[in-house]
Amino acid sequence: MAPSVDTVTLASGHKMPLVGFGLWKVPADKAADIVYNAIKVGYRLFDGAYDYQNEHEAGLGIKRAIHEGLVKREDIFVTTKLWNNYHAKEHALAMAKAQNDAWGLGYIDLYLMHFPIALKYIEPEKLRYPGWWMDAEQKTIERANVPLKETWEALEQVVDAGIAKSIGISNAQAQTIYDIQTYARHPISSLQIEHHPYLVQPDLVELAREEKIVITAYSSFGPQSFLELPPAFRKRSETVPTLFEVDVVKKAAQRTGKTPAQVLLRWATQRNIAVIPKSNNVNRLQQNLEATDFDLTDAEIEAISALDKGLRFNDPGFYLDKPLRIFA
Amino acid sequence: MAPSVDTVTLASGHKMPLVGFGLWKVPADKAADIVYNAIKVGYRLFDGAYDYQNEHEAGLGIKRAIHEGLVKREDIFVTTKLWNNYHAKEHALAMAKAQNDAWGLGYIDLYLMHFPIALKYIEPEKLRYPGWWMDAEQKTIERANVPLKETWEALEQVVDAGIAKSIGISNAQAQTIYDIQTYARHPISSLQIEHHPYLVQPDLVELAREEKIVITAYSSFGPQSFLELPPAFRKRSETVPTLFEVDVVKKAAQRTGKTPAQVLLRWATQRNIAVIPKSNNVNRLQQNLEATDFDLTDAEIEAISALDKGLRFNDPGFYLDKPLRIFA
Repeated sequence: MAPSVDTVTLASGHKMPLVGFGLWKVPADKAADIVYNAIKVGYRLFDGAYDYQNEHEAGLGIKRAIHEGLVKREDIFVTTKLWNNYHAKEHALAMAKAQNDAWGLGYIDLYLMHFPIALKYIEPEKLRYPGWWMDAEQKTIERANVPLKETWEALEQVVDAGIAKSIGISNAQAQTIYDIQTYARHPISSLQIEHHPYLVQPDLVELAREEKIVITAYSSFGPQSFLELPPAFRKRSETVPTLFEVDVVKKAAQRTGKTPAQVLLRWATQRNIAVIPKSNNVNRLQQNLEATDFDLTDAEIEAISALDKGLRFNDPGFYLDKPLRIFA
Repeated sequence: MAPSVDTVTLASGHKMPLVGFGLWKVPADKAADIVYNAIKVGYRLFDGAYDYQNEHEAGLGIKRAIHEGLVKREDIFVTTKLWNNYHAKEHALAMAKAQNDAWGLGYIDLYLMHFPIALKYIEPEKLRYPGWWMDAEQKTIERANVPLKETWEALEQVVDAGIAKSIGISNAQAQTIYDIQTYARHPISSLQIEHHPYLVQPDLVELAREEKIVITAYSSFGPQSFLELPPAFRKRSETVPTLFEVDVVKKAAQRTGKTPAQVLLRWATQRNIAVIPKSNNVNRLQQNLEATDFDLTDAEIEAISALDKGLRFNDPGFYLDKPLRIFA
């Protein structure tokens, strides 16, 4: 019997599970099986993106589980994201349709703007997954003159067209949120950001709470998520101790009889912040899901929050030769 | 003979002095004399704002100096700022005209959006200088649904109408700058931000450089600017040593035969960042102006930059009972 998953209600009125499975870095050729098995373990939320290059395959895994009667479509919550090269109104709407077709589940539950930055349109026939570069050799990027307002309004049309139930934004700064709120016709339901004890962002978290925007935390284990990336990306991950080894985390794990990973996830979910961990290990997959069935003390939460170093691991400004400082 | 002041060329094509006089906290009843005397000492740039409540008086000081033949209008550079309650197109344009009339100098050199946040309009007859509060007793604030795009376009009309020569923004985050760049018809000439060795913001500074936006630093002496504010505002200023007493600053001052204040200003101007210090003391006024006639070594600049603590003193999120987290 799969465990039930706690949910949180979005500003759109729809419910979202507090613990989900993140599809970033899941290889396309394994995604269907991994997603199918995650559903068996009890996962109901899958966090994807066009940029993760595995939407079709993740959808196959979900459809297999539905076909076998393990779950119904309405038990599943699919999040996916619009990539930066498709911010123009006409591209955003077409892309949402194409992504929805790729998942093959009738609709998307939550559709996010992946980054609040518009890059130049590239025809999918020329380069299907452009990532941050126009040109993999020269590593140049070109911005496009598409205001965020146009892109947000396109996301609203995606809702109007019945393609997505809720919309939101990822990697946004406070001022971007304030500005979208001045023209939003459909609410910002979720804000997905890097959030772990080394990057707590208390003011941004509080702002989201006041604006009724549910935060989804990525990289809940901090440096851990980056250790499997190429060396250049790993650099800063190696300058701090892994969060699993930090004293206050280990102590809370001992007291509760949980693992440090579970403590790190509970530190978020207990504050109504959704998490989307990933694991290739079935036991850890199960453990990560059990991140809402125990409580930390206020003192433990505060002690873990006190680890804050303002340390970002996902900062494109450090990845690019000609940097795009999204988070500066 | 007044010393000449180094200038920097803005994206608009106009030149701006690298050292100016900041009018924040200058009492209206003393502003005319203070400005007039600053011109005598050699100041050419005056950094004002509607919110500083001394535009008319500062203008009187400049007009006295012009009348006496000390300077001509074109020798002077006036910066002023649009306050948050007047972001709507019709209010912004009317306010720019009224502010220009208050200065009484024919035109404004640089007109900035003071904060990238729109607050509810309040008729000047009801409350002339609303500051951050709708209501001084309850300390509530109300946002207005005016997109930044509308306000930026209003600033562009201020240029088109010949009221201002250049426009820019203050207190903006990176994403706000990227977004404005997607629709700007007139360039962002300057970005005014808190910038001192305890808050270096290297990525934002580098972004501005790439975008040809000249940074104007406020609070160049860090905590110092906040010590004269009421206790609640001072709190964080007292948690760190004053920058005048920090070893690397004192050493650079000794080596160059300058004061620590001059070193702190040169740390900015040597990187083409404009500064707008203020002083009530004539000697210091003179010294602050002499912040471009010597050079720090690269090692000194780096050592001073290494003092960075990401420590903001001007964060409205901490001033308000119901916080507006502009900088989160």
